[in-house]
Amino acid sequence: MKLTVDRSRLVSALQQATKAVSARTTIPILTGVKVVADERGVTLTGSDSDVAIQCTVPREEDDRVLVHLQQAGSVVIPASYFLDIIRKLPGDTVEMEVSERFTIALRSGPSAFHLNGLDADDYPRLPQVEEGTGFAVPGDLLRAMIRQTVFAVSTSETRPILTGVQWTLEDGHLRFVATDSHRLATRTAQVEADASARFSVVVPGKSLQELAKTLEETRELVDVYVAKNQLMVKGKHTLFYSRLLEGNYPDTSRIIPTASKTSLVVETKEFLAAIERASLIAKDGKNNVVKLWVRPDHTVELSSHSPEIGKVTEAVIARAVEGEELKIAFNARYMMDALRAVDAPEVAIRFTGAMSPFVLKPTDHDWTLHLILPVRTY
Amino acid sequence: MKLTVDRSRLVSALQQATKAVSARTTIPILTGVKVVADERGVTLTGSDSDVAIQCTVPREEDDRVLVHLQQAGSVVIPASYFLDIIRKLPGDTVEMEVSERFTIALRSGPSAFHLNGLDADDYPRLPQVEEGTGFAVPGDLLRAMIRQTVFAVSTSETRPILTGVQWTLEDGHLRFVATDSHRLATRTAQVEADASARFSVVVPGKSLQELAKTLEETRELVDVYVAKNQLMVKGKHTLFYSRLLEGNYPDTSRIIPTASKTSLVVETKEFLAAIERASLIAKDGKNNVVKLWVRPDHTVELSSHSPEIGKVTEAVIARAVEGEELKIAFNARYMMDALRAVDAPEVAIRFTGAMSPFVLKPTDHDWTLHLILPVRTY
Repeated sequence: MKLTVDRSRLVSALQQATKAVSARTTIPILTGVKVVADERGVTLTGSDSDVAIQCTVPREEDDRVLVHLQQAGSVVIPASYFLDIIRKLPGDTVEMEVSERFTIALRSGPSAFHLNGLDADDYPRLPQVEEGTGFAVPGDLLRAMIRQTVFAVSTSETRPILTGVQWTLEDGHLRFVATDSHRLATRTAQVEADASARFSVVVPGKSLQELAKTLEETRELVDVYVAKNQLMVKGKHTLFYSRLLEGNYPDTSRIIPTASKTSLVVETKEFLAAIERASLIAKDGKNNVVKLWVRPDHTVELSSHSPEIGKVTEAVIARAVEGEELKIAFNARYMMDALRAVDAPEVAIRFTGAMSPFVLKPTDHDWTLHLILPVRTY
Repeated sequence: MKLTVDRSRLVSALQQATKAVSARTTIPILTGVKVVADERGVTLTGSDSDVAIQCTVPREEDDRVLVHLQQAGSVVIPASYFLDIIRKLPGDTVEMEVSERFTIALRSGPSAFHLNGLDADDYPRLPQVEEGTGFAVPGDLLRAMIRQTVFAVSTSETRPILTGVQWTLEDGHLRFVATDSHRLATRTAQVEADASARFSVVVPGKSLQELAKTLEETRELVDVYVAKNQLMVKGKHTLFYSRLLEGNYPDTSRIIPTASKTSLVVETKEFLAAIERASLIAKDGKNNVVKLWVRPDHTVELSSHSPEIGKVTEAVIARAVEGEELKIAFNARYMMDALRAVDAPEVAIRFTGAMSPFVLKPTDHDWTLHLILPVRTY
């Protein structure tokens, strides 16, 4: 292998591929990045057991030569050293050359590094995902959908299936559901897919956090394909693979209440700020408990109390208050997560009693819905 | 105590005072900030055993009223809660009121906090430093002087005196010296002082790191006073106190070589970048060892080698090379620290042999000097 490559493009591609590399892996070769140089350009692959990211610097783009290939080949290079070195090299291009025993030379300006590499033939093969059932979605939308749901997955391994986000495709609608059994987040969007395409899979939350980082903030479409136990997301120069979780995801459609006894409309930012302040006191306790009181006169109050620290009271300035008096308590973190994810200036909150889950929805669209279970204190 | 105070000014003052507050203190009242409201305004004090910072929000400034005082008084408030709350309160002003048993109410817009405070009479008294021997220096210069020396103090308590920076005032010159016995950093500056004023004290490195954070990037003068066992730095609204270290600081003037057998002039940024790259390999080893070779033909090479990772060679582009051939090895971190502190576009490095300390000095002024002891490897 011998080639010269544009340094800043190599840095970007490496930053993507190394996102999948874990320093804690038990398989030594996975601490490295696989480099393949061929007629397509330079392709970098990083992986842990769950996720793989492949990123290519093409030979040419927009009539600019990015890779001068002198000899095709492949090698595995220790990921952390590789990225640190390429970042700090002084020149605009980097010369890469593999010599005997997988030693790789990296040269740029007055700098010359020689790193001990590994045989690329020993690197695990990526899963084969046929470009069968799938859909296309703008990268920034997929990123937003992940952000708006993934926070609600379970962090406990008691029910492993809840550590993932359920993806359901039906009638051209993609729906994400995440729940840790204390709160639930959903996000739906229209995507480009065959009307007949349908599936329901569960993608590990950790994989999705990595996927979100590789997605760019652009409307450019990415293609998503689903196979039996793998998900593949295909961007312009990037391929992202994740294993899927096995098991049955609980049927969440029935737990979302449709009626309501008390309801509020609040300005999202203002209400979030009030919850954040109440949480300063609440976080001292075990469950970060904040109480909400809808008074008979339709004024609304938030409060929290810690015997050690003190107490807080917030008068909530609500746009609308309807229904019965209500005293309810909830975990402030769940409320803050939901309000940050809701992405709307106004949110409607519908309660069906102090012991029942309540629903948060934007007032201006139906694409997101958050459900929170109350804490019993009153 | 009852008053209303400008919120953003209270945040700034609290940020200063809480810098001195340590969460790890064994004296419970020192986890709080002392608040004193009187005719001067609101004065906040934070302290651990070594450092105290006092910051005042004046009653008026530039014809703007900052504090409406209704009743003078004092209280101690838990520092971390206090700052978090004031930061997040919604209004432009905050009302503070102390009621029975040192409960403090903080009100702003629709928010009301009640925190459990402590009796200000139980808060330790600040040291008395008479405004005797001292000098005046621009805040940004004092900050730069600290930054350029404090990194070289010892982190080991084997010789406690070396954990401080020696400050010497003589003939209107202030000189800082720091050494951990492997390298030494000095910085001298002219300050405003009586010609007769002279002292030599040692200020803990940790205190100076805190002091640097309180100093603003302005040419405005701060007054520095030295007492038997205390240093006091007086800014516009801020008072900073630090205890001094007891003991004799070693005489460092004699260890700085005056002659040289080999010398280089290098561009600081370029040389630093080359050392940083070499350090990527060197940091794998114990002493972060980089080798420098001044060849007989006056070309210069940096190199480092790790059996596990690989090796690096850098051709140094020197502005000037004089004297004998030299092979020397040193800790890359010491060299990087010195090059980052030297604050000059070009630096001259003077060697007196592979086993002797070498000197770094800017080519354009004599205010800074760095000394590094080599590592024996060749």
